[in-house]
Amino acid sequence: MRLALIGATGYAGLELLRILSRRQGDELVLVTSRKETGRRLTEIFPALAGEANYNDLTLTAPTHLSGQADIYLLAAQHGAAMNLVPELLRDGAKVIDLSADFRLKSAQLFDRWYGPHSSPELLPKAVYGLVELYRQSIATASLIANPGCYPTSIILALAPILKASLLDDSQVIVADSKSGVTGAGRGASQITSFCEVSDNFRAYKVSGHRHSPEIIQELSILNGQVVKLTFTPHLVPMNRGILSTIYLKIKGQPKLVDLREIYLEFYRSDRFVRVRPLDYPPETADVRGTNYCDLGLFYDQESELYKIVSVIDNLCRGAAGQAVANLNLMTGRPEDLGLSGSGLRP
Amino acid sequence: MRLALIGATGYAGLELLRILSRRQGDELVLVTSRKETGRRLTEIFPALAGEANYNDLTLTAPTHLSGQADIYLLAAQHGAAMNLVPELLRDGAKVIDLSADFRLKSAQLFDRWYGPHSSPELLPKAVYGLVELYRQSIATASLIANPGCYPTSIILALAPILKASLLDDSQVIVADSKSGVTGAGRGASQITSFCEVSDNFRAYKVSGHRHSPEIIQELSILNGQVVKLTFTPHLVPMNRGILSTIYLKIKGQPKLVDLREIYLEFYRSDRFVRVRPLDYPPETADVRGTNYCDLGLFYDQESELYKIVSVIDNLCRGAAGQAVANLNLMTGRPEDLGLSGSGLRP
Amino acid sequence: MRLALIGATGYAGLELLRILSRRQGDELVLVTSRKETGRRLTEIFPALAGEANYNDLTLTAPTHLSGQADIYLLAAQHGAAMNLVPELLRDGAKVIDLSADFRLKSAQLFDRWYGPHSSPELLPKAVYGLVELYRQSIATASLIANPGCYPTSIILALAPILKASLLDDSQVIVADSKSGVTGAGRGASQITSFCEVSDNFRAYKVSGHRHSPEIIQELSILNGQVVKLTFTPHLVPMNRGILSTIYLKIKGQPKLVDLREIYLEFYRSDRFVRVRPLDYPPETADVRGTNYCDLGLFYDQESELYKIVSVIDNLCRGAAGQAVANLNLMTGRPEDLGLSGSGLRP
Amino acid sequence: MRLALIGATGYAGLELLRILSRRQGDELVLVTSRKETGRRLTEIFPALAGEANYNDLTLTAPTHLSGQADIYLLAAQHGAAMNLVPELLRDGAKVIDLSADFRLKSAQLFDRWYGPHSSPELLPKAVYGLVELYRQSIATASLIANPGCYPTSIILALAPILKASLLDDSQVIVADSKSGVTGAGRGASQITSFCEVSDNFRAYKVSGHRHSPEIIQELSILNGQVVKLTFTPHLVPMNRGILSTIYLKIKGQPKLVDLREIYLEFYRSDRFVRVRPLDYPPETADVRGTNYCDLGLFYDQESELYKIVSVIDNLCRGAAGQAVANLNLMTGRPEDLGLSGSGLRP
Repeated sequence: MRLALIGATGYAGLELLRILSRRQGDELVLVTSRKETGRRLTEIFPALAGEANYNDLTLTAPTHLSGQADIYLLAAQHGAAMNLVPELLRDGAKVIDLSADFRLKSAQLFDRWYGPHSSPELLPKAVYGLVELYRQSIATASLIANPGCYPTSIILALAPILKASLLDDSQVIVADSKSGVTGAGRGASQITSFCEVSDNFRAYKVSGHRHSPEIIQELSILNGQVVKLTFTPHLVPMNRGILSTIYLKIKGQPKLVDLREIYLEFYRSDRFVRVRPLDYPPETADVRGTNYCDLGLFYDQESELYKIVSVIDNLCRGAAGQAVANLNLMTGRPEDLGLSGSGLRP
Repeated sequence: MRLALIGATGYAGLELLRILSRRQGDELVLVTSRKETGRRLTEIFPALAGEANYNDLTLTAPTHLSGQADIYLLAAQHGAAMNLVPELLRDGAKVIDLSADFRLKSAQLFDRWYGPHSSPELLPKAVYGLVELYRQSIATASLIANPGCYPTSIILALAPILKASLLDDSQVIVADSKSGVTGAGRGASQITSFCEVSDNFRAYKVSGHRHSPEIIQELSILNGQVVKLTFTPHLVPMNRGILSTIYLKIKGQPKLVDLREIYLEFYRSDRFVRVRPLDYPPETADVRGTNYCDLGLFYDQESELYKIVSVIDNLCRGAAGQAVANLNLMTGRPEDLGLSGSGLRP
Repeated sequence: MRLALIGATGYAGLELLRILSRRQGDELVLVTSRKETGRRLTEIFPALAGEANYNDLTLTAPTHLSGQADIYLLAAQHGAAMNLVPELLRDGAKVIDLSADFRLKSAQLFDRWYGPHSSPELLPKAVYGLVELYRQSIATASLIANPGCYPTSIILALAPILKASLLDDSQVIVADSKSGVTGAGRGASQITSFCEVSDNFRAYKVSGHRHSPEIIQELSILNGQVVKLTFTPHLVPMNRGILSTIYLKIKGQPKLVDLREIYLEFYRSDRFVRVRPLDYPPETADVRGTNYCDLGLFYDQESELYKIVSVIDNLCRGAAGQAVANLNLMTGRPEDLGLSGSGLRP
Repeated sequence: MRLALIGATGYAGLELLRILSRRQGDELVLVTSRKETGRRLTEIFPALAGEANYNDLTLTAPTHLSGQADIYLLAAQHGAAMNLVPELLRDGAKVIDLSADFRLKSAQLFDRWYGPHSSPELLPKAVYGLVELYRQSIATASLIANPGCYPTSIILALAPILKASLLDDSQVIVADSKSGVTGAGRGASQITSFCEVSDNFRAYKVSGHRHSPEIIQELSILNGQVVKLTFTPHLVPMNRGILSTIYLKIKGQPKLVDLREIYLEFYRSDRFVRVRPLDYPPETADVRGTNYCDLGLFYDQESELYKIVSVIDNLCRGAAGQAVANLNLMTGRPEDLGLSGSGLRP
């Protein structure tokens, strides 16, 4: 297959290039960038020199895309994909969109959080690219909405409970998430400058973050009815990783060992979810550079709350890695092609 | 006054030395260390050379303490103070204990979380050294139990609501706290080594941390009845700082602007609590090296939960700084002697 | 005295505000910012709320400055001071300029590294504000050129040797310097974003950095003839601190213990230089938030090279701290007013 | 081939496991650890769960090693290999030793820096495992002395100049190196604790480090006569990476563009050395997790010194990666088997 990478110069693009450099089979034939048109790829990312065919690639403008590739990986800013996708699909290409443009099923909800959608008719066609939940549909989809990073960490943490109708909704679910700084993108910004982030910790978008509707949409589907949940993101002085600490009540107050069985069973065929031994709190460094989601299960006797700790690499599992897993499914390859091997630790 | 610092070579000791180097009036006459007996203070902490009388101080063993000082600052490991305090008090000295030895009012509870207490008869005598709540009692106390770092951040965040009987207890309070690494102490340990902490994030003691009973004790006093709360600590790759994100329901769902008024009124005379403007999420770097506790108030319309974000410097406000505030009250000095001036940022 | 701070919103400005919040005696009456005109100071820097008179200060445009203050601290970008200073001096005010505008004595050299100078006639009038070398002249100066951060670390490291005519010039001096990221300023920039700096290390301006002529100018004055030296700056993933490792040959190959005597004697009356014990390599964290320069002396028997390790806090000693030391001298205050007390460690 | 990893629980061991998880062909049949005997590998390193055959491996004691494998990768502490190697070689196995035990050719020199050698007769048999210099010998060797991390970065930087007899020895070479903290190993230690390293920078072993004789040995072989060089290591608050800044005089003062040609020619067939474009200063993040050594060439007109900037990943290229490159050569595989693909950035 001929692959195209649209929006190659952000961190999601760079992570895709990293993963593709380890993946055999398909050829990357096109890399685009609006800002860096005409420059050689390895000039922007000297780290890539010498790998795959990257020394030979030059960034082009994201125009006249149709016909240049069979599958398009869209790693552009939110709002760009919705304008590019209609034509690509018309021409028979497949698209994996890493932005938020096709994640919400409701155009109204999209409008409220992101602004007006230019291709709302495509929203129902998009498959939410979380392989553990939608593996079958992904394999045959032509448009994948690659999940957001925070949603990935939270949905995988709660799916087994919701699917088993175990949620006790007398307590609002609290999802307290902490992310590395790559989540904010590669653009220059004072608030993500080294000196403002280093030796510092802060929350942001405390009253509402646009990943909330995505999280609630998917959890509610799993639950069969609307889930009540609050979500707070925080910024950690580290490059990669998301850790979500999720607080909830569970019906019947199962023992942790039994709860763990439910998780093991749910994720039995899933190579990229590791249900951790009891009492091992997952760490983001365990998944750095990988497509894993590690889950830890805890119970606080005093308050009778359960706590699920979920970690992913926001750039890999939360973006480029799961895009490649989707690509693998769409091309009939092993789900972990290009994604195997342990991560970088330390 | 003659001051003694018992346990000078940990991070709380070092922070006390830093603050005392800026504070006029009392003289530090004794510094002790079990491990480093006989070495000069500035040999252990070269950063202190040239300040106050530190070039002249040599670490002695923590024995025969009585009579050497008027006020003893105890910055030793948990379990040490309970054996030293009885004699010191008998001899008429005053004690500010930075360990957990005298924080819990119940000897049974202490036993469950820390082990047997050797001086349980002193527990009722100890004053909990949180100046905003116990200023009067502190001024005349002979034994101060200096609050824990996490409890400080959480109690100050909730006191105005609990005191005003505004807590809606249909939802268990969630206190999700994140701490810098100095909280783990100065001893060598693999899990706090640079390479295990850097570019990593993790939770710990998820099922129960021994600061929980301290938090619940003080909140329940404020509330007039037992408060239900779960607390989870996390480790942030930074040196200093605690940020607690606290989720709760509030009776009558007040507007944020009104809630803020309640906070402003409650902390009207408190120099070290800053109730932040609405929509400004406090950052740990804002309080680095200071005795401030900054509070931010938020509301999530969807879930109807309030979120209080509270930040302190765990070593200063959460340990040495508030010990010095207590010292100031006990010696009739301005509460901020040695504690004024803005912090180090960046 | 009435003080004005021109260019208050950069890191040097913030550091000045931090130090002045601990310093009694003079009043800050004016803070200016071109970009943030009209905003309250504590809105830009919430960390400053509650200290000194900062809650009451609003940023004004840097116009009509004359007559508003007695001493002007200029912390603006390079190139701004040379246009402001003539009028201020004419009106009898004194100026401490933290930029590079008045550091070089040669207008030609300035032109080569920085561009044309608009007030070259003032260059001979400016006193280089390194208190250890020019204390007398500073006290009576009306225009201080506050030294650059790298030059401060290197000049103090070499002054005793050069002054004693001990340099063996058969080997070019190598000054390999490493700086924290605050040295790059507070503006948004991709190359100083957290994700580009964290877990990374790099050199920059390897073929020539504009601090070179300043270093060589001052060293040559000390030496009595031109000194040959190469200087390379590097960027360390930390906020503050400069460490310079300096390699040179010394005439007569003195023993380290004798060399140390020369340093101790040279800096006998200097409160802010700490000549460290032999075999203790100074660390930047030892001087964080202070005006110290710590020096360590080493000798490599194999190569017969001496190595001087010098550390400072680039924002304090390398900018705002030494500006305040100059201010103290100019106002007849103790040199360390506002600058005493040990630094923040960790 | 059956592979054994002796000393699996240090950082070099972990990095070998990471690389081997991506490498096909040989099977890891044995992992040993003195301290963690009997524990499962993934208990020590949860990050490895789910990769290769690691879920099935249990750490055994490093005894009765003979016959268990065909090639032994020794990642134990200095001093362990010299006692294990004689028997392994006698039994026909091959050994790649990542410690310093077999790097020096002179037993006397070894004794001076490391202590007495128990198998000095093997020193001449060991091949120094730097593939760019000794590719032929490595392929047929039975004992490989895997190079030290600092020496790798410095030797590769200077080899083309020395080999071309271009060194002007009127100036002692200065090699100023900066390393991430993984270089200090995985053991608990106060000086490598997060709070002592973070926001800090320091030099160590300034008067002499035991990598010096290794560096000088190899450079002198290249040069045809003894090279005079001083080496200073520094500790950077980052996990991985070494950057060496090397200062020297070059005969005839070639233009940089010509010097670069010499480098390009020298490393023409070397997949793991990237001679960078002029004016691009290599960064450690460019090589994180890879086997690359990136080189940048600079010239300072004022001092007439050349500066070579060299970066590697100390754990990969400086230890495990180059061990695997050696393994590949010894087993007739492509040199980059398991080592291809771009690194993790950011």
